[in-house]
Amino acid sequence: MSRRRRRRLNPPQLIALVYLLGIALGAAALHLPGMTRPGADLNAVDLIFTATSAICITGLVVADTGETFTRLGQVTILLLAQVGGLGIITFGTLFALLTGRRVNFSERQQLAQQVNALNVGGVLGLLRIIVLYTVAAQGVGTLLLSLRFVPQFGLGEGLYQSVFHAVSAYNNAGFVVVPGGMLPYAQDPLVSGVIALLIVLGGLGFLVQLNVLTHLASPRRNRLMVYSRLTLVTTGALLVLGTAVLLALEWTGALKGLGTGGKLLTAFFQSVTPRSGGFATVDMTALAPGSVFVMIALMFIGANSGSTGGGIKTSTFAILLVSAWNLIRGRTELIAFGRQIVPENVVRAGTITTIYTLLVFTGFFLMLVTNPTLGFTPLLFETVSAAATVGLSLDVTHRLNDAGLTVLCALMYLGRIGPVTFALALNLRETSRGVIKYPPERDILVG
Amino acid sequence: MSRRRRRRLNPPQLIALVYLLGIALGAAALHLPGMTRPGADLNAVDLIFTATSAICITGLVVADTGETFTRLGQVTILLLAQVGGLGIITFGTLFALLTGRRVNFSERQQLAQQVNALNVGGVLGLLRIIVLYTVAAQGVGTLLLSLRFVPQFGLGEGLYQSVFHAVSAYNNAGFVVVPGGMLPYAQDPLVSGVIALLIVLGGLGFLVQLNVLTHLASPRRNRLMVYSRLTLVTTGALLVLGTAVLLALEWTGALKGLGTGGKLLTAFFQSVTPRSGGFATVDMTALAPGSVFVMIALMFIGANSGSTGGGIKTSTFAILLVSAWNLIRGRTELIAFGRQIVPENVVRAGTITTIYTLLVFTGFFLMLVTNPTLGFTPLLFETVSAAATVGLSLDVTHRLNDAGLTVLCALMYLGRIGPVTFALALNLRETSRGVIKYPPERDILVG
Ligand SMILES: [K+]
Ligand SMILES: [K+]
Repeated sequence: MSRRRRRRLNPPQLIALVYLLGIALGAAALHLPGMTRPGADLNAVDLIFTATSAICITGLVVADTGETFTRLGQVTILLLAQVGGLGIITFGTLFALLTGRRVNFSERQQLAQQVNALNVGGVLGLLRIIVLYTVAAQGVGTLLLSLRFVPQFGLGEGLYQSVFHAVSAYNNAGFVVVPGGMLPYAQDPLVSGVIALLIVLGGLGFLVQLNVLTHLASPRRNRLMVYSRLTLVTTGALLVLGTAVLLALEWTGALKGLGTGGKLLTAFFQSVTPRSGGFATVDMTALAPGSVFVMIALMFIGANSGSTGGGIKTSTFAILLVSAWNLIRGRTELIAFGRQIVPENVVRAGTITTIYTLLVFTGFFLMLVTNPTLGFTPLLFETVSAAATVGLSLDVTHRLNDAGLTVLCALMYLGRIGPVTFALALNLRETSRGVIKYPPERDILVG
Repeated sequence: MSRRRRRRLNPPQLIALVYLLGIALGAAALHLPGMTRPGADLNAVDLIFTATSAICITGLVVADTGETFTRLGQVTILLLAQVGGLGIITFGTLFALLTGRRVNFSERQQLAQQVNALNVGGVLGLLRIIVLYTVAAQGVGTLLLSLRFVPQFGLGEGLYQSVFHAVSAYNNAGFVVVPGGMLPYAQDPLVSGVIALLIVLGGLGFLVQLNVLTHLASPRRNRLMVYSRLTLVTTGALLVLGTAVLLALEWTGALKGLGTGGKLLTAFFQSVTPRSGGFATVDMTALAPGSVFVMIALMFIGANSGSTGGGIKTSTFAILLVSAWNLIRGRTELIAFGRQIVPENVVRAGTITTIYTLLVFTGFFLMLVTNPTLGFTPLLFETVSAAATVGLSLDVTHRLNDAGLTVLCALMYLGRIGPVTFALALNLRETSRGVIKYPPERDILVG
């Protein structure tokens, strides 16, 4: 009986339930004695908010994580983020490989070959390789960060800071416990560079990284997938564009006090972090209105499907752009990297964006109604930051009332598991295979 | 030779050129002596802005129209708006009937039958009937308004005010010359009601009105088109929703001083005017942040294709919504009113919205960069108002520098002729028929 009931849960329902359980368990754990420092004043909503922010790897906080939580509490938050991040990576990868929902058939075979070449053998083997790969990437990050943090904080504390921020960065979790935050490292190429790199890798997702690595190892046998090329080009273009705009708008503004190298590094870091790292090496409230708008736009676009990043996803954005350009040029076929993008993918891209926009704007409207005095721009910023699981803040999250925090919780949760997944999880129609409910296009990961 | 060159202009190029010429001629006309009152201080950019606002039937102003322009100047502005409005109505209708670009074949035949039943005979006959119908609608509006304005202002001035605002309202032009603006008529069911009705009719477009009228006259012979039903339902739903939200948010806010009837009327009027009338019977700057957001959203959605309204259009919005709902429900076919919406229409809806969003956000970014001190919310409001040719204002247009005004001019122009039309006009590839450049879907007017 219990077996039969478990079989009835389709993948969307499983994801929705797992993350909901994670939030409940996380909040309960953070409520235990010894988690918060004496004097910390967090109510139930604050704890639920913190647990949601951790497991949905967002990084929005109601109070400074380092000052409010004990070492035990901080580790709990980090573990929640690691579980949340690994969950999304494995779910995303398994979905793509096993159901073929998002990768087209011939490419899926290619991909399966590349995975097989690793001799992983089956689902559990694949899970193992994902976990090992993730831990390895975070390990390298920890080593590099310790070159700075160990001399600064001593061996024990330095290693702790290195582990915490390597894990937080690769998971795009955005939690920071270093005293004074990341701002003092704005001109430090080691810390800024390593964290930016980990954010980008985490935001690319496992499949793209695997595809690139196997391609580099043996270019003839392992072709670079259209999906990899599309997302790599889009990611690169957004990084260059974001850096250029921030340099232009903030050269004599928020970047004023820095040297030329520091300006470049800080602008680059701030173009990386909206998608969807959540760390900041410049005070967001010091940015010009134009820069704030660019940050909001980058957050909304987000990172890759099946990665630790959020947003509508780079491929969705790219398909919409190519489609717009095609309409403008009067073409009827969408071509990207020598392959046709079928209309169903454009439909999916447009629909995903519509649903995501409705989610963000409904949330924003509720934020405006529940916290009318906090201002249009900061509320829009926090809303998009929550829905895209970014964690950047214009410094009003800690001033929100409980209604506002609840709205952000819902946005982080829906933004993380995906509004479409959530809707499919609620869908009570009987079907033997949950996945056949998705539209049949299989060419490119969208949303 | 001149004949041959004229033949080479495809319809998008014709539209783009006609509206550009209209702006140039309008600005030159407004520059003539006797157009502005003594003491009015308008430079070249202000005059170009006013001419653009008039011919693109937007209604944004750099200075109060009644106080700044002489009677002659006001009539010139009204004529520009009438030409701009008639231009869009006739172009939209002719496109739909003659090229079949936006209405599918069987429906086009039905429609042609309905038009034929009017015994108009040919294109010029159709143009004549559109002009006559427009003048008739404005005439009825003038008569009704004169019931209020003649007693108030005397015969001559009263008739002038009635004609001006009937024409301005039906064209969704948004220009107001009554002293003190429309606010004193917030609780006047006659003035508010007639103007709201004219805005709605203008925003439905000629084809839908014709279809509804012929259907009412002979329901069996003339079926209500899917396009008519879709846009009527969407328009109605947006009106009800907008009214309800404004009532809820402003009952003790901007509507506080009014009686219950006045509250209802004012909320209804303010839910009509963003799509895309531009008149206001309440001070926009007195609205709560949530109401401002709702106004922006309604402006962005706009009115019907081929009407005097702007925005992404109601049918585009409706298709995106139906498509989102379908994805959530796991359906693969889009059904509206018993007919399937083909994927190409969803692609077009998504693409149109993408292009429009890019236009608005590029404009907004330029506004933020050129006028960083004027505030995020007011600049977003004016940007959307211009791009959707609405004309509502948070009272910062007159404080914009020339760069900001130029951006708004470009947005009004592109928003009026449509960014896709403009791009197709720029497309220099040789084709014998400009219209074949459009994607081949023909079911529903989108964008
Ligand atoms: K994050
Ligand atoms: K208007």
